Formats: sequence, C-alpha cells, structure tokens
Amino acid sequence: MDAASEARFTPEPSRLDSQYRAVRRKSLELVEPLSDADATVQSMPDASPAKWHLAHTSWFFETMVLQPYLHGYRVFDVRYNYLFNSYYDSVGARQPRPQRGVLTRPTLDVVRAYRAHVDDGIAALLRAGSAARALELIELGCHHEQQHQELLLTDILHLFAQNPLQPAYKAPEPLPTQAASGAAPQFLRFDGGIVEIGHDRRGFAFDSEGPRHRVLLEPFALADRLVTNREWMDFIDDGAYRNPLLWLSDGWARVQAQAWTMPLYWQHGEDGYRSMSLRGAQAVDPAAPVTHISAYEADAYARWAGKRLPGEAEWEHAADGIAISGNFADSGRLRPKPVGPGSGLQQMFGDVWEWTRSPFAPYPRFKPAAGAVGEYNGKFMSGQLVLRGGSCVTPAGHIRASYRNFFPPEARWQFSGLRLAEDL
Amino acid sequence: MDAASEARFTPEPSRLDSQYRAVRRKSLELVEPLSDADATVQSMPDASPAKWHLAHTSWFFETMVLQPYLHGYRVFDVRYNYLFNSYYDSVGARQPRPQRGVLTRPTLDVVRAYRAHVDDGIAALLRAGSAARALELIELGCHHEQQHQELLLTDILHLFAQNPLQPAYKAPEPLPTQAASGAAPQFLRFDGGIVEIGHDRRGFAFDSEGPRHRVLLEPFALADRLVTNREWMDFIDDGAYRNPLLWLSDGWARVQAQAWTMPLYWQHGEDGYRSMSLRGAQAVDPAAPVTHISAYEADAYARWAGKRLPGEAEWEHAADGIAISGNFADSGRLRPKPVGPGSGLQQMFGDVWEWTRSPFAPYPRFKPAAGAVGEYNGKFMSGQLVLRGGSCVTPAGHIRASYRNFFPPEARWQFSGLRLAEDL
Amino acid sequence: MDAASEARFTPEPSRLDSQYRAVRRKSLELVEPLSDADATVQSMPDASPAKWHLAHTSWFFETMVLQPYLHGYRVFDVRYNYLFNSYYDSVGARQPRPQRGVLTRPTLDVVRAYRAHVDDGIAALLRAGSAARALELIELGCHHEQQHQELLLTDILHLFAQNPLQPAYKAPEPLPTQAASGAAPQFLRFDGGIVEIGHDRRGFAFDSEGPRHRVLLEPFALADRLVTNREWMDFIDDGAYRNPLLWLSDGWARVQAQAWTMPLYWQHGEDGYRSMSLRGAQAVDPAAPVTHISAYEADAYARWAGKRLPGEAEWEHAADGIAISGNFADSGRLRPKPVGPGSGLQQMFGDVWEWTRSPFAPYPRFKPAAGAVGEYNGKFMSGQLVLRGGSCVTPAGHIRASYRNFFPPEARWQFSGLRLAEDL
Amino acid sequence: MDAASEARFTPEPSRLDSQYRAVRRKSLELVEPLSDADATVQSMPDASPAKWHLAHTSWFFETMVLQPYLHGYRVFDVRYNYLFNSYYDSVGARQPRPQRGVLTRPTLDVVRAYRAHVDDGIAALLRAGSAARALELIELGCHHEQQHQELLLTDILHLFAQNPLQPAYKAPEPLPTQAASGAAPQFLRFDGGIVEIGHDRRGFAFDSEGPRHRVLLEPFALADRLVTNREWMDFIDDGAYRNPLLWLSDGWARVQAQAWTMPLYWQHGEDGYRSMSLRGAQAVDPAAPVTHISAYEADAYARWAGKRLPGEAEWEHAADGIAISGNFADSGRLRPKPVGPGSGLQQMFGDVWEWTRSPFAPYPRFKPAAGAVGEYNGKFMSGQLVLRGGSCVTPAGHIRASYRNFFPPEARWQFSGLRLAEDL
Repeated sequence: MDAASEARFTPEPSRLDSQYRAVRRKSLELVEPLSDADATVQSMPDASPAKWHLAHTSWFFETMVLQPYLHGYRVFDVRYNYLFNSYYDSVGARQPRPQRGVLTRPTLDVVRAYRAHVDDGIAALLRAGSAARALELIELGCHHEQQHQELLLTDILHLFAQNPLQPAYKAPEPLPTQAASGAAPQFLRFDGGIVEIGHDRRGFAFDSEGPRHRVLLEPFALADRLVTNREWMDFIDDGAYRNPLLWLSDGWARVQAQAWTMPLYWQHGEDGYRSMSLRGAQAVDPAAPVTHISAYEADAYARWAGKRLPGEAEWEHAADGIAISGNFADSGRLRPKPVGPGSGLQQMFGDVWEWTRSPFAPYPRFKPAAGAVGEYNGKFMSGQLVLRGGSCVTPAGHIRASYRNFFPPEARWQFSGLRLAEDL
Repeated sequence: MDAASEARFTPEPSRLDSQYRAVRRKSLELVEPLSDADATVQSMPDASPAKWHLAHTSWFFETMVLQPYLHGYRVFDVRYNYLFNSYYDSVGARQPRPQRGVLTRPTLDVVRAYRAHVDDGIAALLRAGSAARALELIELGCHHEQQHQELLLTDILHLFAQNPLQPAYKAPEPLPTQAASGAAPQFLRFDGGIVEIGHDRRGFAFDSEGPRHRVLLEPFALADRLVTNREWMDFIDDGAYRNPLLWLSDGWARVQAQAWTMPLYWQHGEDGYRSMSLRGAQAVDPAAPVTHISAYEADAYARWAGKRLPGEAEWEHAADGIAISGNFADSGRLRPKPVGPGSGLQQMFGDVWEWTRSPFAPYPRFKPAAGAVGEYNGKFMSGQLVLRGGSCVTPAGHIRASYRNFFPPEARWQFSGLRLAEDL
Repeated sequence: MDAASEARFTPEPSRLDSQYRAVRRKSLELVEPLSDADATVQSMPDASPAKWHLAHTSWFFETMVLQPYLHGYRVFDVRYNYLFNSYYDSVGARQPRPQRGVLTRPTLDVVRAYRAHVDDGIAALLRAGSAARALELIELGCHHEQQHQELLLTDILHLFAQNPLQPAYKAPEPLPTQAASGAAPQFLRFDGGIVEIGHDRRGFAFDSEGPRHRVLLEPFALADRLVTNREWMDFIDDGAYRNPLLWLSDGWARVQAQAWTMPLYWQHGEDGYRSMSLRGAQAVDPAAPVTHISAYEADAYARWAGKRLPGEAEWEHAADGIAISGNFADSGRLRPKPVGPGSGLQQMFGDVWEWTRSPFAPYPRFKPAAGAVGEYNGKFMSGQLVLRGGSCVTPAGHIRASYRNFFPPEARWQFSGLRLAEDL
Repeated sequence: MDAASEARFTPEPSRLDSQYRAVRRKSLELVEPLSDADATVQSMPDASPAKWHLAHTSWFFETMVLQPYLHGYRVFDVRYNYLFNSYYDSVGARQPRPQRGVLTRPTLDVVRAYRAHVDDGIAALLRAGSAARALELIELGCHHEQQHQELLLTDILHLFAQNPLQPAYKAPEPLPTQAASGAAPQFLRFDGGIVEIGHDRRGFAFDSEGPRHRVLLEPFALADRLVTNREWMDFIDDGAYRNPLLWLSDGWARVQAQAWTMPLYWQHGEDGYRSMSLRGAQAVDPAAPVTHISAYEADAYARWAGKRLPGEAEWEHAADGIAISGNFADSGRLRPKPVGPGSGLQQMFGDVWEWTRSPFAPYPRFKPAAGAVGEYNGKFMSGQLVLRGGSCVTPAGHIRASYRNFFPPEARWQFSGLRLAEDL
C-alpha cells in the first residue's frame, strides 16, 4: 500500500462541529411527520424502523467515539448495545435484524433523549479537543448517519406502501429531475484507455472508495440521460415481464416467484399507472426517470434495448468533473460545470441511484479500516452490485463521484434506476 | 332442531345499554398504559395489535348492527371494512392477518374517534328502539369485544416478552389464585352416567355452547386444584422435555423444532426461574398454577403423572353449580357456593384456562347462526382443543360453566394451564 | 381396566405360520411390477419408497420379535436399525423421514435377502415353539405389514402421478364397486341410544380399537351408498372450490394455498375429467365413488349437500353385522349378510376409506400396549381424523368393522371418500 | 465485435466422429457401477440423477443438432423435450429442476436405448456430410456432455454421502496430486501490466471464454501450490469457523444457518478426520489439497492467512504456457512444460477447481451465441464466482487455461479448493 492511500483526511474541529449539528438536526426533522407508531414498525426484514435509525446512529457515536475517546462518558443505557448494534460482530451480540420492529420501547421520546445525551458527549469531546482519530470517526459517524437518513426515507415509503390507506409522508418532497426532452437519449462517446478512479483522500470518503487506482477501459458510450417512465411503459407493453429470454436466470426466477409486472410501487389506476411515493399515490410522470426497479429489471431493460448497463469505472470516469447539484446536494461543494469527458451528461447526481453491472468488490490493495469500523463495508463485498450517483433523497453533501452504494440485484425499495451504456 | 334450542334470549334494552357502555369503556382503559407504538406492533401472526382489537370490535358493531339496523347510519370510513374485518369471508376481502401490524395509520387517536362514532350509532339505535335481532347482535358484540379484551392482554404480553427490555404493562394486574396448600391434589370422584351439558339459552351464550344435550360419562375423578409451578419444575427436573415417550408425536416434533424446555415465558434467573408477565419479569411463584403451556405440554405432564386431561363434558358436569368468582368476574351474577357434584373443587373459574382433551367439535344438532355471524365459531371446528374455566385476564361477566374457548394444541401465549383427571 | 379388556387373543401357531407366509409373499408380489428405481424414490415426505416398506416391515419382526425371543438370532445388518426404524423413539435414532428416498443402498436385491433372513428366523421361532407374547407380536407384525401393503400402493400411485409419463403400476388392479344405481342416496334411519362399539378381543385388533365401551348416540341416518364422482362433478360445477362459506377455516386456507379445484389425481382431459390411477390415467367413472379427497373436501361436500359426515361410532354401529366383502377381503371370514341395523347399506367395506368427523382419540380406559409397540397408535392421537371401512387396496383379512384408520384432514393420497349422514 | 472474435473453429468430421464416440462411451462407463436406483435418485435440488444426465445430454444433441440438421430424423419420444430440457426457455416448458428425481421412468435401459437412437442419428449426419454449424454444435454437445460427466460424479458423491452406509462409487478413482512437500507455499511474483486473456478461437471454447481481450493487472504473487488439508486443519483448530471477523457477511450467515465446522464431506473419525469420497469414507490425507469447500470458506481462509483469492485474469495469465497434465487430461494435447510466467507453479490443472474472487461476468464485447445455445452461459452471469483449473474428475481434453467454471459462492459439492494470492 502506498503512502498516499494511507493518508487520512482529518477534519477541522469547528467545521466538524457544524457538520455534526446539521446532520443530527436533519435526522430529527425527518421524523417530524411521523407518529410514534410510524417510527416503530418494521415493514420487512430489509427495512428498519425510523426510531431504530435514530437510535442506531447515536449508538454508533457512543460506541465508536464516546466510549473510547471521551473520558468519563456515561453510557445512556447499557442494554442499547444489544438493541441498536446493526451488524458489528466485534462489538457483541445484537437484536436479530428481522426483530427490530418489536421494540416499541424505548419510546420515540426516550430515543430523542438518548440522542441529546450523545450530542452532549460529542459537544464535550469537541470542546475538550480530541485525538485526530476521534475527529475522523465523528466525521465517519456523520456520513454514516446521512446514509441512514436516506434509508429512513426509503423504509418509511416501504411501510406506507404496505398500508392500503397509502398515506403521504409529507409534501413537498424532492423529486428526480425530468428528462430535458422526450427525444431518444444521445450516447456520448468515451475513448477508453488507462484511467484513474477511486477517491483521492482529499476530503472524506468511505474506505471502499479507495485506493485510487488505474483501470483499463475499452471505448464505450453512455446515454446522456436516465431511462424514463415512458420508456419503461414501452418495455412493459412489449411483454418484457413475460419473456424469459430477456432476463438473467436468477432474475427470471424472481420475476416468476414474486409475480413482478412493473416497478415496485406502481399500480394500475383508472387513467394509467400510478405509483406510491413519499407524497402518497401519484400518477406516474412519463418524463421522470424510472425508479424502484431491481438490477435484474435494469439488466433486462438494457438487453431489450440492445444496450448494456455501465461498469462503475466507466460511470466514474464519465462523471469526473461534473458539478454535483442534486436536490439535497451541498451547494457549498459544487465544482465547475462539466468541461471534461462527461460534458453533455444530465441527471448524473441526485436523481436516482444508477445500477451498474459491477459487483461490489475490493479495489486493488483495498484494506478495511482498523477496529470495529472495519466491518463497515468490506464484509459486504459479496452478492451485491454497485450503484452510482445518488438519488433525490440522498442528503446534501453526501454525493461524490467516487461514492459506491451497493445493494443485492433483487433490491427494489431504494430509489434505483438506470442509464444505458454500449460498447464502441 | 327442537324449539327450545332455537329460542334466543333477547336482552332488555336498558340493561344492554349499561353493558355496552361498560364493555366499551373497559377496552379504552386497557390501552391506557400503551403508547401508540405499543398499540400498533404485531409480534407474531397469531397476535394482533391492540389498536387493531379496538378497531375490529368497532367494525363488528358497525357491520353487523349499525349498517343493517340503524337507518341513515354513515360509515366512518369505507376502507375500514378491508382493514378491520378479521375472517368474515361473507363480508368481503381483508387485510391479511400477518400484515395487521403494518397499519400505523389510522393512528390510535383516529381509532378512538372511530369508536366514538360507533358508540353514537349504538346509542341512537338503542334510544330509537330496535328489532330483537339487533339487540341480540349488540349483546353478541359485547361478548365478542370481551373476548378481544383478553386477547389484547395476551397479545401485549407476547409483544413485551419479545423486547429485551421486558417492559411491564402495568401493575397491579390480576393474578391466578394460589393453591390452597402445597399438599398433593385430591381427586374428587364422579359417578358418570347420562348427564346434560351445554348452555340452556337462559341468558347469553355463543352458538357453539349449545344445544344442550345428553352425554354418557364413565366414572371419573378430577383433581381439586390446578397443577402448580412447583409441580411443573419437578416435571422439568425429571427430564420430561427430553423424553419422547411422554409426548404425542406432534408434540415431540414441536418440542424439538422450537427447542421447548419450559413454559413459554419462563427464563433462567440467578435465583431460579423467572417469568415474563404483565408486571414485567417476575420470580416464578411455586404455589401459583402453571400457565402459558401448550396442550402438548399439558398432555405430556398428565402422562408423566399417570393421569390424563379431562374431557370437556366431565369438566362442565363437575363445574355445575360452582360459584364463579374469578378476579374479573361479575360479582352481580354469583351463584351459590357449590353444593352439587363439584363441591371441593378449587380454581375452576378465572385462574387459568384449563386444557381439555376434547377437540372443538359441534354438539349434536349444532347449527351455526344465520348470516355473517355464522362464521363466528363453526368454521374453526377443526384442529383445535377446548379450554374451560376462564383466566385471570378474562373480563368480568365473561365466564360461564358452558363456555368453550378453543386454541390449537401448540398455542402457548394464552393464560393456559391444566387440571388432572383419571378414570375410575 | 377390567379383566376382559386386558385379555389378549393368542394366535394358534400353525395358523399363524400360514398367515405369516401369505402376508410376506404378498408384499413381494406387490413389488413385482416395480423397477429398483420405482421401489427407491420417495415422492413426498408423507410417502415412503416401496423398498423401504419391504425393509421396515422386516425390521419390525427383527426388532420386536426375533431379537427378544429367538435365542441366538443374528441381526442381518446392525445399521438397519437406524435406516428402517419408522418412528419408535424407544428403539433409537433413525433416518429422518423425508430422507428415506436417498437410500439407494441397500439395493432391492439385498432387501429381498434381508426379508429371507428374517423369514428364516420367524420359521425357526415358530418351529421351536415360542412364548404367547411372541406369537401375539408376530400376528401384530402381519397386520402391520398389511398396513404397509396398502401404503406401498398409495405411495407408488403418488410417485407415478408425479411423472409426466403417467405410467401404470399394473392392470388389472381392484377398483371400488360402483353405486348400484344413479338414483339419489337413501338415508337409512338409526334410533340412537346407548350402544357398544370397539373391538371385543375375539381375534386380532390393534390396541386403539378397544376397549369395547358404551356410547350414547342421538338418532341419525346414514346414506346407503358412497358419494359418487358424478355427484362430485356437480359440487365442482356449483363453484364449491371457490366458495369459502362451504369450508372449515383450515380447509379454505388449504384450498387457496394449494390451489385445489378437484380431487388429487383428477385432471382435465379432452372428453371430461381423467384421473391418474394404478392403471395409469383413466377417464373418471361417474358411477364410482369419489376418492383421493381430503377430509376438508368431504366436510365441504357434506355442508354443500345439507348433510354432515358420520361420527365413527355411528358408522361402526351401523356396520355391525354386515358381511365384509371388499375386493381384497378374506372370503374365509365372511359373516352372514346384514340382518342388523345396517341392512340396506352398500359399499361399507373395501371400496374407499370413509372420512368420519371423529378425531382419532383414545377410547375410555385405553392404555397403549406395553413396550416399544406401545408407540404404535397412541402417540398419533392428535390432529388426525378417523376413517372407516377399508378401501379397494386394503389387503384381504385386514378389514374390520372396528378398524380405525387415521390421517390428518388435509391428506389426499389415500383411497379416501365419503358417505353422508344426518341428524334425525 | 471484430472479425477475429467472430471466427468459429469448425471441427474436422472424422476427428469429430472419434471425439463423439469417445465421449458418449465414457458417459456409459461412468454409470456402470450404478444401480438403476442409484442412477435415478436426486439428493438435492442442485444435483441431478445420473440417468437424467445421460438423457439430457442426448436431448441436447437431438434438439440442437438432429432436429434442425438431419433430414427425416424421428424424435425418440416427444415427451422427452419436457422431461430432459434443463433450462432452455426458448425450447419450451420443462420438468421443474427439484423434481428430476421422481422420474423413475423411463428406466435406465430405455435411456440407454435413447442414447443409441441419438448416436445413430449423429453417425448418419456425419456420414452424410453436414453443415459447418452442425459440426460446431456436435463439438459443443461433446463438451457439454463432458461437463455433465463431471457433474454426474459430483452428484453421485453427494447422493452416496447422504446414505449412512457411505457406499463407494468404485475404486480406484483419480485423486488430486499431493503437494510436493510439506513446506510453506512459495509465492511466485508477476509484474502486472496490460496482458491478454480469453480464448483465441483456435480450437473449441465456450462462448463465455472470449473474446480475447486486454486487462490491466497490478503486480501480484501466486502460491506455487494449493492449500492442503493439513493447513485447513490449522484453520479449523484456530477457531476460524467460530470467528465472524474472518468471514464475508453472507458467508458468516451461511456458517451459522448450516452449522458449518469443516469441509462438506469431512466427519470426525476415531483417528482424526475422515472424508466421504468416491472410494467411500477415507482418512483425510494431510498432504492432499483441501476440497469441497465453498468460496466463503476459501475467502475466510485467505483472510485468516493474510492473503487473498486470485482474480481470474491473474490466474489465467500465470497459467499461460503450463502443460495440462491432470489425471483425466488428454495426453495428446500436452503443451511444453512451463517456460513462461508461471514456471514453478504446481497443481494448476486437474487437481481441484480453484475459487477466484472474480464474479462470472461477460468479457468486453461478449455476445452470447445465436439461437437456443445462447442460453448456455450468459444468463448465469449473476451471483456466481469463477473457478479455474479443472479437477481430478474433469474429463480428459476438457481442461483449458481459459476455461471459466462458475458456481455460487455457497456451493460445496464440487471438487473445489483454493490457491492463495497477494498484492505486491
């Protein structure tokens, strides 16, 4: 491992203090529209209750930062280490994931008190001046909590979609941007060759985003926009959900076993398709990007269209130099408008997560972080595909060109869509 | 069917009005100690959320009484017929039972408003004077709601028992009475012969409690008290949960598949067994009756003890003439102290439901009630065993000698225990 | 327990020798039409391979008779105690039931050698003169093997029915007798009162057939014949498989989960219904009794017809005095033509097993046999219903008026049908 | 797609005739030690009966070659298209995979007749002179059948391993070669850079082995030998199967759910580990390569050893120029001893399949073959990892440096082991 990739970016304390407060405040805002019951119920094993997200993110700060680094810190409730550990085997036993929804206690109010207790601890630690490693872990905790902010929204949407009353979370919520026109997508050409991808350690990144390294790309082209709902209706109308030859074998098995005939939240309405959303059930907007599809569906669509999904290196290479301006994006970190290879690409950031065909695998010379936080990403590098670009519910400041989101190919409850690619 | 068994007991309107108000008030009292989340979560498919119990019992009055009998009645929300129908196929489609817990909406407050709306309707109907059939159905609805009051408590206990925090519902809650002494149970002898059992239609009863009919009993004896926790510990200590020869084949399969080693809510504490209860985790009281056991366990215990479970006709015959004085029991309806065959029997009513060996089957010439309420009992006459006597959480006025509770033999989350019997 | 019910009937050695040889020969004849593969494959967990039936019945003699009673007996292969024990927990661990079909070894030829080895042992024991208990156990083993002969046929039919080639086992095989006419069934009336049922211990019977005891019957009527395929088609045509109000709750759940629309082996042919049978796929004979139906279907049919299923005591009382003349029946044991209560009843024996509404439960004062054979019946007295009368594939001499066959209500792969009853 | 990658290698008819006969003869030899029952039973959904392998490979020739290319060919039995289609959706419906084991008919003898019928057809086609495409498909069918020859052996081993009698398939069967010494493995260094991998279309290859293309490798080292059983025992003794920190998250879930504590066929014997094999149960040879492990276990071992699994491109690059001399290997196709990059590497071919960390994914510009055979590989490019090198039961002439075997990471019943790699 070379020295550059080892260097960690240590955040500046006062900036970190603001960041921490903003992130923590945002989480509480997100649960404002929810009742105690809304925040407690778990609608499927893959989803977690909003209250659990609030508590788990606090547990992360308590366990990774306050216990090791704040002298005299008093744990809020020792039993929470069992209740709110997600998957850190090195930290001990935990509530089984499918049973997170039985935790009607602690109540939402007690969880808020837990958060305040942790916030006091972090404030004390920042005031006192703390080790560089503690600062790094606080920043990691902020990004970790931002991940859970998005999950909180995807999980609430899933819960509300199970309810025949189809309640709205709240309006207005951000939406993906529409395609600039109804015309066919343009395919922008890239030469290939040896390029560099991966995070360069200037600023925060998760361990799995590095080390920055060389990859060899063959010439390729990338669609200038996302696939739209209108195009997806054509795919449905052409019988794609009934044609096994369009699908990966595992995908076709899933289509049949779960009777998929359209994206996850779509339903037939009197005047065409409707879709459950954070605003409640809405007419499907033909010009908006399709979302809540699995990688199997994205792959089948690409085959049907005579194209393929992009590789994550292609995507990152093309995205290099494009300004990040998603709905939630942190305007303070905008880079100049695209002048590089990806000039002309639209909807790259903050609309829907774009499935790639790349398995979530370690980059060359990847080493997980030391200690418990080493369980963060590396152990999930099996059976998952990378998604890129962030969605309309990804928090501000949490989108990067090097960001590698990952989900199993059958996952549909995220804001996931696709952009086509092709070989040249 | 003879005329006697057809005769229905029509309640007197003013008495019914009091009864209705008392029952409805009691349901609301029961949810007082619960948060919105406590009242919403479903801890297993067999259990229902407290909020669902509140709404379903109201739906019953709305659907069975107000819609057919109250002119001009306005349904509170047409979608509730889907949400809160339990199993009445003749009334239409419904929320699948295992999905009752995703209904975070309507909120608990809205459900309270629903209840008030229905209460207004019933009050109007009673004021206006209504058909005898409507009065009968209102009384049925009161008893139906009392059933759900007990279920609400058993379901909350199950939910809280899944939570590692082991919260208490509230203290003090009623407890079963203790055995009068630690001495071995006495077996009271009964001659057998042709006796009559079943409800005589004087006062309210469910359809399955009749018709009253003759049964032939062989001479038998019945223990004067329930099996205690102390005796159950002896059963455990003798290796009973590891000895297949004590068990019915289905029971042994269940013991192994679910790793049963003690009653449902027992756990090993530092000073002996503890048990989760509505008061939270408590030391097991050796003198109290064992509870939260399946019929398989009750049957194995009886075999281990060289005895057997009673038949329901034996139990009812022995119970005839005994005063009902359970914790919740309606003191206004006490009958004189036992002077008949069962003199000397203790803990017959209102302690724990007593498993019998009798399958829940139709009595001779049983016909389900006409209309939708005919789905109430008859269609469950398969795969279930009868329990008798009521428990410490059975509501006042809801215990009768002829009452036939029923659950599948593997059910453990009810307040179920046993009394031994033997052939003479 | 009174002395009479304890008395066992000890068979006479030379008669037993003939019986043993005949039964053992019959088993080998039954597998003649089968290949080694046919005899080895297990088509579902409830079914067993033919080879397993051959070996298990031999293991029964080896374990229950030869090891305890034949001095110097050498076990054929000690590992067979694991392989061919069915469910006797007191005899040790065993091959899990769903895994019986992986035993391609021992081969069918080795199993035949095992049978010959056991037969030599039994012959030696009978020659040497043996204890009365040994003789009783040999007779029990013969009846046990006859049970397995029927199961062997039902299991082969199930296996062949899974094969798209629908092979025939062999022709001709016995068939149920047809109804005497196409007219509506006549209902023969019985007065009720106190009657006696249960085996009287003159001749062989399984422990569960006794003790003989009194039961109280209300007046009832019994159809003079079985329900026919023609009548079942009317039931189907009337939408019965789509109407939840006709079904027990558990039955309706099964109809939906397994998409039942007709009896187990029926299929739609070009000229009406066809049914898989031991002769291969055949047109359904409208005049023959319906078979391969579950108790849930039988119960739904009875409800649809405005009748009910008989109780087992009603059936046995009515059957008393009727000659047993099924296809396989032992002509040497015919009793005179019916002169008693059931005069006029047809198809009582040896056509199809008739579902009753009676749970398989112990008769008053029933005690299982001592020793390992005590696991024979008693531990299955849970979750099963009694069937009466024997079927066209029940072996000769294995049908008795007191015989209590039992299966869970969802079982369909036996030759099971129904006869209607009604209250008077 | 460039012209080079499109060029197909058309086999010479007389050479193909010999190849066809040899392959077909070999399949029949493989079932010689099997009974009809052995050849029919399916021991798990992932495995297929030997008889099914024999028939399916014949169906492949019948469907892909004889029906389209042999004028006047008469199909042996039209129903076999349903029975013996594996997964070709374009060819029609098929017997569900988990139900292959219920096909006791056709018998093994009839399947042999089916094979002879197909062989006659192919002979006629070759005599008559056939289209280049037909010749190519015959060669594909030969390689397809060779794949099934290995599967037939792995599936028989799985079947026999389920049998408590642990029968031997036959002795002697080929074994993996032992490590040359007990010394620690040496790591041979490779420079990395841009290299070419993939099949060059000189001679036969499956579509997924191409197109040949460039890859960028970072400097790496590869162990000169496979991991041995002795080393695996150290891994076990160090508690690896109980330490979640060594495992991928999915792998650890599998370890717990299936209680893995050692390789699939290992068991504890009196004198150390024994393993079920084609020779029956044998003592584990410490010097032999470990086999029957999942990719999860291989990955955990590598992490425990401070190394990693190789990428498939690293493996293929290192293997370039090494003579293929596995036990079954076709001696007529030996290349000179290694003089290239991989000089010093042992056990690269024909010992055990080596798990790589590479997902089975399309090479750049990969296009599946046209027609039904296009379903051969491409649709499985999801959820599988590549294995390289061939095993001791891979048929002669079926091992190539470019060969990409693939299985899901949890698969253990193949002859799969591992070789360590590391970054430089």
